[in-house]
Amino acid sequence: MSRAPERLSLNQETVRQWSLPELVAGCAAAGVGAVGLWRDPVRRFGVRETAALVSGAGLRVSSLCRGGFFTAADPSGRAAALADNRRAVEEAAELGAGVLVLVSGGLPEGDRDLVGARERIADVLGELAPWAAVHGVRLGIEPLHPMFAADRCVVSTLGQALDIAERFPAEQVGVVADSYHLWWDERLAGELRRAGAGGRIVSVQVADWVTPLPEGVLLGRGRLGEGCIDLRGFRELADGAGYRGPVEVEIFHPGLWARDGGEVLREVIDGYRKHVA
Amino acid sequence: MSRAPERLSLNQETVRQWSLPELVAGCAAAGVGAVGLWRDPVRRFGVRETAALVSGAGLRVSSLCRGGFFTAADPSGRAAALADNRRAVEEAAELGAGVLVLVSGGLPEGDRDLVGARERIADVLGELAPWAAVHGVRLGIEPLHPMFAADRCVVSTLGQALDIAERFPAEQVGVVADSYHLWWDERLAGELRRAGAGGRIVSVQVADWVTPLPEGVLLGRGRLGEGCIDLRGFRELADGAGYRGPVEVEIFHPGLWARDGGEVLREVIDGYRKHVA
Repeated sequence: MSRAPERLSLNQETVRQWSLPELVAGCAAAGVGAVGLWRDPVRRFGVRETAALVSGAGLRVSSLCRGGFFTAADPSGRAAALADNRRAVEEAAELGAGVLVLVSGGLPEGDRDLVGARERIADVLGELAPWAAVHGVRLGIEPLHPMFAADRCVVSTLGQALDIAERFPAEQVGVVADSYHLWWDERLAGELRRAGAGGRIVSVQVADWVTPLPEGVLLGRGRLGEGCIDLRGFRELADGAGYRGPVEVEIFHPGLWARDGGEVLREVIDGYRKHVA
Repeated sequence: MSRAPERLSLNQETVRQWSLPELVAGCAAAGVGAVGLWRDPVRRFGVRETAALVSGAGLRVSSLCRGGFFTAADPSGRAAALADNRRAVEEAAELGAGVLVLVSGGLPEGDRDLVGARERIADVLGELAPWAAVHGVRLGIEPLHPMFAADRCVVSTLGQALDIAERFPAEQVGVVADSYHLWWDERLAGELRRAGAGGRIVSVQVADWVTPLPEGVLLGRGRLGEGCIDLRGFRELADGAGYRGPVEVEIFHPGLWARDGGEVLREVIDGYRKHVA
């Protein structure tokens, strides 16, 4: 089998059916050089054990998903979020993941103030960013599609993510650009240039957009090429802005999880070659 | 029963279970002065008959939903859309609806070019707008939430809608501002001011945002006050921009359609008083 494209990274959730040893063995066998990991499975397997497993196979960790959920309005919620995110930073550092992906959090129950919620994100980052810097981890603010603004992430565009990130040094806080969340935005090209010029693009992720969306809209991402996103154009925009890092394939879809992980990975590699590389 | 708030208009789809005579009788009894109508039920009842029914009860038609679906890339698709929209304009004129709401259309199958699709909308409007002017009907470009960008409407923000509308005279083409589609956008206040300054706000609609979204995401709108949108703030922004017209309550939800229409209308009036007026 030919080696996978050099910049391709496989996000763990794309092949959720795989254990960590299966993921690492599968990627190593396919020539995939990097993986994006999630905190829950990593903690179940052990952070140190995961780090040893991954590096032992010669793989890199392109990102750790995820910290964030910073929008609690009460002091105890804020303190809990900060404590949990400090642990996430430590885990990212132990894994050698250069980037901790942050999903900012939605509106608290009964809260209708988006501006205030976004401001609380910046407030928590003021404490978390120096902690991350000490640990050699960059924080990546990931804007999520506006359909998640209420319950998951009040940061809905790359421009908003940059507005927050730019309050901090670029080596501490950047942005994560995921095609699935950003493809519809006519300002995307300009904001990617802005992000690249400031050295703020810390991660690029790809998934395609397909309809109809499923109930809850979380688990309906499309395989590379089956949807309506110009994925190659998206990757080229990021490259044109100076991004040279891994391109993580992150597809949440139960249809993929029901299949053989190796087959899914071969399909990912094939789709990446045809539609992204 | 006290009269309904003066600017409240009831969109027909909120009480889809009602026939047109039930809708008109129910609104007249409740003191609702205007209704938003949909082409399909109006055509089934008869356009002329609907016009007579509505005006006979002393009601106005705040808008007719909907024309649009302009994004076909082939000449025959374009011609069919134009012909259908000309009929929609004639129907709106016969109903005395000042506004024909336009949902622009999504990406054609296999098409990944959002910019091109948006340009085709402007192209068709170049022929439709003079036709509408002759008939005394204003066209209202309605931006839909970005979750509909692929399959329903490539115009996702009020700014984009204005970019297209402003190519035409304000008395011919304006924009429709619906809280459900626009609430997440931090540029909303500024774009409403821009729209108002140009005399472009032709309709204001309200529904609330609730999660989880249902499969297909079309029929999950929230009742006034049950979700996370600052509806009063939204209406005040439109008013602050100079809008003085009807505020249409348009809630697509099977839960409402399963209930007694009169009860739903009383709830709408109550919710409007508490959360919008």
